[in-house]
Amino acid sequence: MATNSHINPNIKRKKEALNVEQLFNELQSGQVSALSRAITLVESKASGDSAFAKAVLQQALPYSGTSFRLGITGVPGVGKSTFIESLGRQLIARGKKVAVLAIDPSSNISRGSILGDKTRMEELVKSDQAFIRPSPAGTTLGGVARKTREAIILCEAAGYDFIIVETVGVGQSETAVHSMTDFFLLLKLAGAGDDLQGIKRGIMEMADAIIINKADGNNQIAAKHACREFKNAVHLMPDKDHGWPTQVLTCSGLNNVGIKEVIEEIENYTAHSKANKSFIKKRHIQELYWFHQTVEDAITSNFYNRQEVISKLAVLEKEVLSKKKSPFDAASELLGLWSFKK
Amino acid sequence: MATNSHINPNIKRKKEALNVEQLFNELQSGQVSALSRAITLVESKASGDSAFAKAVLQQALPYSGTSFRLGITGVPGVGKSTFIESLGRQLIARGKKVAVLAIDPSSNISRGSILGDKTRMEELVKSDQAFIRPSPAGTTLGGVARKTREAIILCEAAGYDFIIVETVGVGQSETAVHSMTDFFLLLKLAGAGDDLQGIKRGIMEMADAIIINKADGNNQIAAKHACREFKNAVHLMPDKDHGWPTQVLTCSGLNNVGIKEVIEEIENYTAHSKANKSFIKKRHIQELYWFHQTVEDAITSNFYNRQEVISKLAVLEKEVLSKKKSPFDAASELLGLWSFKK
Repeated sequence: MATNSHINPNIKRKKEALNVEQLFNELQSGQVSALSRAITLVESKASGDSAFAKAVLQQALPYSGTSFRLGITGVPGVGKSTFIESLGRQLIARGKKVAVLAIDPSSNISRGSILGDKTRMEELVKSDQAFIRPSPAGTTLGGVARKTREAIILCEAAGYDFIIVETVGVGQSETAVHSMTDFFLLLKLAGAGDDLQGIKRGIMEMADAIIINKADGNNQIAAKHACREFKNAVHLMPDKDHGWPTQVLTCSGLNNVGIKEVIEEIENYTAHSKANKSFIKKRHIQELYWFHQTVEDAITSNFYNRQEVISKLAVLEKEVLSKKKSPFDAASELLGLWSFKK
Repeated sequence: MATNSHINPNIKRKKEALNVEQLFNELQSGQVSALSRAITLVESKASGDSAFAKAVLQQALPYSGTSFRLGITGVPGVGKSTFIESLGRQLIARGKKVAVLAIDPSSNISRGSILGDKTRMEELVKSDQAFIRPSPAGTTLGGVARKTREAIILCEAAGYDFIIVETVGVGQSETAVHSMTDFFLLLKLAGAGDDLQGIKRGIMEMADAIIINKADGNNQIAAKHACREFKNAVHLMPDKDHGWPTQVLTCSGLNNVGIKEVIEEIENYTAHSKANKSFIKKRHIQELYWFHQTVEDAITSNFYNRQEVISKLAVLEKEVLSKKKSPFDAASELLGLWSFKK
């Protein structure tokens, strides 16, 4: 570290500029190792890497936005890897380049709980038309989501035209995936506790399609029953803003049955949403969402993370609960102490 | 105004202190005019009134929290006033003192759209055990909600032990009412476009009870049918945190039929939630929600309302949508310009 400070800063800057240029050219020409390195830079916590990562992203940005972005969620055991393997292979057969990313804020603990075990996607891993990347490490969903969102940009600049973002639905991770994808797919199991009763709040409203997986062998009758039940439930839900009724299908990722129909539904959706302009509208809303969300998160965390605020907050919370102060008085007392300054 | 500045400030302060004391004593002794004046103070935008309002609230705070707080929502025409009239009368017959407040952020335009026409609650208006107050004027939901929440505190200090907060469900007003009440009741009509298909997002999950109103005359069969449909839909919903399954009932506010059963359900809920401590837990969550919400709203509006930020934001939003900058870069550029200072 100490020796670096003696290097002529102009030389150093020139070297970095060269590297950014070189890395980006390699990435854009389809070199998987360059894409991997660029994503590693984006994920890096080392302070020196952040300017570099930003420069690469800046170069990638004009080439991004061209892919179809598919979000997939489902509980562990629902067969996500097998489904993605099967879906990915069919997409590649149709001439697509497929990237598979993941959001799992719990991955620090359960390290590699999703996409970590790449052996489950045997063929996809071997294909030179597929790129698979496990969830970045991170403690906060915001951080993990941001890195995944930036990885999407890099993958698109590298020519991947079908991006799959997977999550296991820890905390708010489904909302994060939903807000960075064009189509949100909920994978379900018939019976096995993963039925309609156990569905997470709000998830039905986010889903553009619900796919009952493992509709094979003895499970076929149960899958058909679950399909009917979900169709009824979906029918009871209010219409979405973009006017696309949530589709319910069954499939078997294992036997490669029903995957073609899923792709057709995605194609139908794309045609529908591009025709009524809801596709681009949704993208714009997502861009501004991430912009505002980042601003608001930073403002509030900047405020809440100050030691003085933390101490004061604890005192005020007690006073609110013991009715010494109203929530509004406590808030204005807290805010009276600080203000935004340039 | 000019003459006021010549008054000895000590005398003036003493006079105000006396007034606060006097107003609060009158309020607490059950004088309706004092309660009305106190709420008017809370609603006032005149800068001189705010210290006075705060002082009265401060006195009221230790006596608050003792009532049952019932939230009611439903589209215009669902019969809210008639339902509240019927419910209020039965509650008074059971020895309750009933206050009816309203949240309607649109009331600036449609001035008095709810509770304004008090003639619909003929008997309740005449009863000395009931207090009815239309929605405060205001342009933002936050402001209107805050005033209503403070009015609850004043009503409780004045001895009202059953507070009804009504809304027509404009924007996020249902969420606001839900977060300041113990029990949230959704009033529906059979047929007439107010059926399951047209239900607003998220509202089913907030409701502790769904009441099909106007189950009278020719409408009884349709009401029973809607009741069955809602029961099915509720059955498909996930369980709530507090373990209370959403109840579905029919009633006729007009004919006073089924209201007793609604009161019984509220009593069942109270017993259930007090036994498993979810009642007090919910109250505490609500107190801290209002505290944190107020802090965060103030921080972000403090930031977003600055002329410099407004100009910069508009430029950055364009750059994000034209892919010149990523949402994250745009955010850090905006935030780099300002910080919180003491």
